[in-house]
Amino acid sequence: MIDQLIRSIQEKNNATVVGLDPRLNFVPSHIKEQAYAQYGKTLKGASEALLQFNKTIIDHVHDLVPAVKPQVAMYEQYGVEGLQAYMDTIQYAKEKGLVIIGDIKRSDIASTAMAYSDGHIGRVTVEDECFEVYKEDFITLNPYLGYDSIEPYIGNCNTYDKGLFILVKTSNPNSGEIQDLLVEGDTIYKKVGQLVNQWGTEAMGELGYSRIGAVVGATHPKQSKELRKVMPKTFFLVPGYGAQGATAEDLAGCFNKDGLGAIVNSSRGIIAAYTKEQYKKTFKAEEFGSAARKAVIAMRNDLNRVR
Amino acid sequence: MIDQLIRSIQEKNNATVVGLDPRLNFVPSHIKEQAYAQYGKTLKGASEALLQFNKTIIDHVHDLVPAVKPQVAMYEQYGVEGLQAYMDTIQYAKEKGLVIIGDIKRSDIASTAMAYSDGHIGRVTVEDECFEVYKEDFITLNPYLGYDSIEPYIGNCNTYDKGLFILVKTSNPNSGEIQDLLVEGDTIYKKVGQLVNQWGTEAMGELGYSRIGAVVGATHPKQSKELRKVMPKTFFLVPGYGAQGATAEDLAGCFNKDGLGAIVNSSRGIIAAYTKEQYKKTFKAEEFGSAARKAVIAMRNDLNRVR
Repeated sequence: MIDQLIRSIQEKNNATVVGLDPRLNFVPSHIKEQAYAQYGKTLKGASEALLQFNKTIIDHVHDLVPAVKPQVAMYEQYGVEGLQAYMDTIQYAKEKGLVIIGDIKRSDIASTAMAYSDGHIGRVTVEDECFEVYKEDFITLNPYLGYDSIEPYIGNCNTYDKGLFILVKTSNPNSGEIQDLLVEGDTIYKKVGQLVNQWGTEAMGELGYSRIGAVVGATHPKQSKELRKVMPKTFFLVPGYGAQGATAEDLAGCFNKDGLGAIVNSSRGIIAAYTKEQYKKTFKAEEFGSAARKAVIAMRNDLNRVR
Repeated sequence: MIDQLIRSIQEKNNATVVGLDPRLNFVPSHIKEQAYAQYGKTLKGASEALLQFNKTIIDHVHDLVPAVKPQVAMYEQYGVEGLQAYMDTIQYAKEKGLVIIGDIKRSDIASTAMAYSDGHIGRVTVEDECFEVYKEDFITLNPYLGYDSIEPYIGNCNTYDKGLFILVKTSNPNSGEIQDLLVEGDTIYKKVGQLVNQWGTEAMGELGYSRIGAVVGATHPKQSKELRKVMPKTFFLVPGYGAQGATAEDLAGCFNKDGLGAIVNSSRGIIAAYTKEQYKKTFKAEEFGSAARKAVIAMRNDLNRVR
């Protein structure tokens, strides 16, 4: 799947990932009203609104971007109806040829990790029946528990050609509180980067990159440059562009000389583009899909300046 | 809720938490057959089997233990049907007066954490309608992202009297890979313990303990003693007893002099007791609830020797 992601980045000449983190407060009212008319102002109504919103976004960007990244929390909060919308979003995006990065950031001991792994990127068995449940292509994981919490995913990555992005250095303001602590002169995030690089050797793709990638926040340009050296064959999933304040220049260091090695996520900057100063004069709320498309093209061009 | 947990520990004279991590391979066949007859060998059939298994366990232990800890991964792997079984398990246990610790180990940036927080321990709104979705009393969290990834939960803890257990030192074999790294002579887990202690001051209960607790593995006796000093007013959720190899003596240091300060989890050791050498001569598979009850009593008595 890392190879498929790379080929898609090359074909579409775009390293942009669209983060599908919809919130009701920026789902246009015509979508919400239709969902509420059908299911009421309920968890099901909210979930239906998110799904329909996502479908329109996907319709408008699928030919431009290699991947989408649904954030499971946005759906999980609405219970089983929300989780169904998460799964339906994945299914719809897959049918449109997109690579799916499930942003789930799970972490647990080995026996529990195996259950997450089988459900999200492997197969779940019920006696002699076998099910592919969530169908993400990649998922994100948290490394705090160490290798035996990651290993249960590596087998499924190799068996089913799936992939991981493991948190190394996150984009949020307090990320340094633990990640920047110094161990013998090196930061924790660098130590974790070294581990991810090492774990990645167990799951190499055919195009020179590992199936085990890293999350490296765009809000830390110096650190991402440093981490690029620590993890030369690791693909970076880079959050923080746009709404979180990072510019294309900030993330130039995430890319290798081949122009590969990183995909950059933007969520609100794309899916809520129609609410931004820049686009709201041109696009009505009903045209949020077209605004998202325009924002994707702008981001693609911006990124292509630096990679 | 931390106060309710403490009162229940005192009333039942028991610091045992029953981990509800059911797996199909130890759900007795009479339960599975009934579930499959109703829903087929499907995700729904598997989920129904887990739910019925849990209900029998809860029926047999609810008067003895203060809390249960469902591990969401065991349900999430079966998709929406599994998540429904997780929620139905919580509902059933709450009706039996048990405190619910949702073992979800989530971690994300603030805006995303808010969605998890509202869904799991707060309220989710759909326009003017308000929903309590998962209804856990406590949830577990991973601290790798720092304070702004935890803060969105603290408000809901105080507003709705809920609680957290934040991973400090986990029970798994590779937990030291990151957690034991030395920062200026102190381990990462100690640094995280200091942070949790500090965060906890924002959410004190009335009985001297904070609503913000810590996960401290029983498999590390020296470290848990050290952490007890670092976090004097923090309740510990202690995994690793029994199946993971720790004994009561190993976790004596988790308790304060008041005999409080820790609850100790056992999952397979209790819910799959009927499969263990010790119990399988006395109990048939159909009597797995009675075996679990006997295992709870044995664990209670074992823990009460050291606390």
